[in-house]
Amino acid sequence: AGPLTLIAGPCQLESRQHAFDMAGALKELTAKLGIGLVYKTSYDKANRTSLSSTRGAGLDAALPVFDDLRATFGLPVLTDIHSEEQCRIVAPHVDVLQIPAFLSRQTDLLVAAAKTGKVINVKKGQFLAPWDMKNVVAKITGSGNPNVLVTERGASFGYNTLVSDMRALPIMADIGAPVIFDATHSVQQPGGQGATSGGERRFVETLARAAVAVGVAGVFIETHQDPDNSTSSDGPNMVPLADMPRLLETLMAFDAVAKRRG
Amino acid sequence: AGPLTLIAGPCQLESRQHAFDMAGALKELTAKLGIGLVYKTSYDKANRTSLSSTRGAGLDAALPVFDDLRATFGLPVLTDIHSEEQCRIVAPHVDVLQIPAFLSRQTDLLVAAAKTGKVINVKKGQFLAPWDMKNVVAKITGSGNPNVLVTERGASFGYNTLVSDMRALPIMADIGAPVIFDATHSVQQPGGQGATSGGERRFVETLARAAVAVGVAGVFIETHQDPDNSTSSDGPNMVPLADMPRLLETLMAFDAVAKRRG
Amino acid sequence: AGPLTLIAGPCQLESRQHAFDMAGALKELTAKLGIGLVYKTSYDKANRTSLSSTRGAGLDAALPVFDDLRATFGLPVLTDIHSEEQCRIVAPHVDVLQIPAFLSRQTDLLVAAAKTGKVINVKKGQFLAPWDMKNVVAKITGSGNPNVLVTERGASFGYNTLVSDMRALPIMADIGAPVIFDATHSVQQPGGQGATSGGERRFVETLARAAVAVGVAGVFIETHQDPDNSTSSDGPNMVPLADMPRLLETLMAFDAVAKRRG
Amino acid sequence: AGPLTLIAGPCQLESRQHAFDMAGALKELTAKLGIGLVYKTSYDKANRTSLSSTRGAGLDAALPVFDDLRATFGLPVLTDIHSEEQCRIVAPHVDVLQIPAFLSRQTDLLVAAAKTGKVINVKKGQFLAPWDMKNVVAKITGSGNPNVLVTERGASFGYNTLVSDMRALPIMADIGAPVIFDATHSVQQPGGQGATSGGERRFVETLARAAVAVGVAGVFIETHQDPDNSTSSDGPNMVPLADMPRLLETLMAFDAVAKRRG
Repeated sequence: AGPLTLIAGPCQLESRQHAFDMAGALKELTAKLGIGLVYKTSYDKANRTSLSSTRGAGLDAALPVFDDLRATFGLPVLTDIHSEEQCRIVAPHVDVLQIPAFLSRQTDLLVAAAKTGKVINVKKGQFLAPWDMKNVVAKITGSGNPNVLVTERGASFGYNTLVSDMRALPIMADIGAPVIFDATHSVQQPGGQGATSGGERRFVETLARAAVAVGVAGVFIETHQDPDNSTSSDGPNMVPLADMPRLLETLMAFDAVAKRRG
Repeated sequence: AGPLTLIAGPCQLESRQHAFDMAGALKELTAKLGIGLVYKTSYDKANRTSLSSTRGAGLDAALPVFDDLRATFGLPVLTDIHSEEQCRIVAPHVDVLQIPAFLSRQTDLLVAAAKTGKVINVKKGQFLAPWDMKNVVAKITGSGNPNVLVTERGASFGYNTLVSDMRALPIMADIGAPVIFDATHSVQQPGGQGATSGGERRFVETLARAAVAVGVAGVFIETHQDPDNSTSSDGPNMVPLADMPRLLETLMAFDAVAKRRG
Repeated sequence: AGPLTLIAGPCQLESRQHAFDMAGALKELTAKLGIGLVYKTSYDKANRTSLSSTRGAGLDAALPVFDDLRATFGLPVLTDIHSEEQCRIVAPHVDVLQIPAFLSRQTDLLVAAAKTGKVINVKKGQFLAPWDMKNVVAKITGSGNPNVLVTERGASFGYNTLVSDMRALPIMADIGAPVIFDATHSVQQPGGQGATSGGERRFVETLARAAVAVGVAGVFIETHQDPDNSTSSDGPNMVPLADMPRLLETLMAFDAVAKRRG
Repeated sequence: AGPLTLIAGPCQLESRQHAFDMAGALKELTAKLGIGLVYKTSYDKANRTSLSSTRGAGLDAALPVFDDLRATFGLPVLTDIHSEEQCRIVAPHVDVLQIPAFLSRQTDLLVAAAKTGKVINVKKGQFLAPWDMKNVVAKITGSGNPNVLVTERGASFGYNTLVSDMRALPIMADIGAPVIFDATHSVQQPGGQGATSGGERRFVETLARAAVAVGVAGVFIETHQDPDNSTSSDGPNMVPLADMPRLLETLMAFDAVAKRRG
């Protein structure tokens, strides 16, 4: 297995300038460390806890920014989609279509995404056992698209809490799709702050180290230059951009051991 | 609070004749027992475990059947919808639009359903705490539709298992929406049979008795004249039609005590 | 099955006078309602959250009180024991020996309790599946004592939370031992208040109604004339004595239906 | 923090010769790798799933073997105790007294163990949150013994399943006691094979790698030259002795990174 890939970016597409600043900073950082980068961005947050939460830039404003990010930085771009129609519209502007965890059992969405021919990253539902992802992957490969990634992002554990079961990583690897560990959503406390979801940023490194040592193809980390003042509901779990160099160096050190020891 | 309402029907719309047989049988039974009936039917199963599972009659075939069921039997009809577009198309043909549990956090779907003006029944996600349904209900009432039902159908409990927390019923009742207990999906074993979901029919009565004694506005029960030979993935948890009279009599006896004791 | 039996009393033996007041009040109340009563008392709390929590009267002070309660009121007395040695010492003074949930897998304790010939009430560990109680019961019956009760008191559900799975009641009944539902410990929040355990008294009636409707041989309810000012760590979940008449009348009404409907 | 310590040995003391063979092999192996070793042995298994499970050599036969192991190999010996009386009897013959997970809330046992002055290793109960171990540790330090280790061995996750929450490691480290990760009991399936507990050996390395990368003072691994034919109920999760060199080399490689990166 090759070295770790990083999927990273802010929770939301805040503005063209912000996206360029973030993508530029992440590209420079990962180039220095020799890590492959996929830039993650979202044009919409379709499952916010409450109606009044902010939802992102919207599709029309976002797609030209996606195009420009790819052209300017030569980076592959990943975004999440929420309906069959969006698959068709968004696919030409990105490299990876991501299926949100809550939607990981929606057959029509999986098939529509698969048929775009893009790489599909499916986040494992909080309500799914790792072995159940076999059926999810089969919906995509059975639609003629062999390019599937599966992402661990925590399982329901009582109320308002997720737990990251590290056994899920080798179980999902056995399915045959590269496995990504989503280190920032795994520390979410869903619904835990009343009208928004909470999170515990201090455990991002804890869980990322664990997952990388077990062995993964990549890690997914949401990051922002000032998470506590971002408009995003993922503020409590995003990693400050300034903390990324040390975090990535640490993960690369573990990854080197993991890939060497098999 | 008034007496128990029953939401019942087969897992899938199998054929026009089958729907008429089931609706007729359930109407006769509930009329005799003095129970209000909402007829439940599905034109599609959008989240089947595997691609090769059967998915129902489809929208075009189903809507005329819905119309005829309402006209012939004078019964309110409930069906589940999976996209914003379906809300608009389906609403004129039914009385209650149901939001599936996996989709209970999808804002656009909730708002689109709300705007039809129909009664909306939201199934609580297996990944949600009961108090989190307050935000879900607010998305609907905040869109101008005060007619919301909330349905308990189990919470994730380890892998491939749900547990019914009876405390969820009074917690959700405090939100102000009538509470329904889904007795057949609560005994599901999600993904538990490999390529389909399993279930334990023997516990339908157990959980329904418990919920009715705690106090609910209604119970949701999928039923079929021959569940073990139905094409549905919910076969293992559907109640045989022949068992419904005794089950409903039992539940009505508990409901009478529950409503009298407050 | 006969009507519901009540196992009730305060969390701790506070004083001889307090025990007599409580036992007298409960005897009068249950006699009026036609409910069988077992008086529950504890001479020690061996698993308090912190060292500084109060622990009860102690063995030497308690045993004469147990004798007098039995002589004066003609009531069977239940107490919990924590070591093999205590079984031998305590048995002559009580009618039922109770195995605490945390100790439900301790073979030597189960066997020592069994060999006293007393009725043994085993609380199901928060870490056990209901079907695992079969092995626990077999340790007692295999030691020559057929008089075993099993008690449901909640299963671990994430951190600091229990959930009452009503399916556990028929599963344990199939083992052949009468099933008790412990309505006050089932609403505990273990460790949830830092140095003591918390609880949510409002759900005692919720869960007791559910369990009685499913069908149980008895309910276990800790009660106190002034729980919020008791020295006990179970204050947050004990039922005020003044609320017991209404609660028991409600449960008896459900029990009558449950036993009639089978 | 210093390098990883290993607590290892077979599930049960099978015979004097077997103990000497295992201790000799483990001493040789750890000396070669530069790992500190504590030899783990049990004279009794007090909480077997069923009465007919084997229970070990017994106290009288075991203590002289403990003495000889210490004298011959110069190794510190750890064993688990189950009653206050055993603490007094066993303490002179071992270096570390271990409190089993089910007994981690039993105050009298914790205090009796503490008062021996030996190092106390408390396994976190499957029913406890990691922050609840603060109260457990305080019972020991509050009894005048500052030498406490805490061990993670999984939390209840639905029925017959444990999950290892890697966040528990830094949370418990904050209490101030060195943290051990028990890699073999964490893969147990409690009660999962009917009359014995099952396990999944393949995940021992998965979870141990994760824990070591997060950062722990030591790992606990049960090992045996032929686990599948051992008399122990932990056969399904013990690591074959022949697999230990590669496993320990891998863990040491991760530990070096973990201790260097902080």
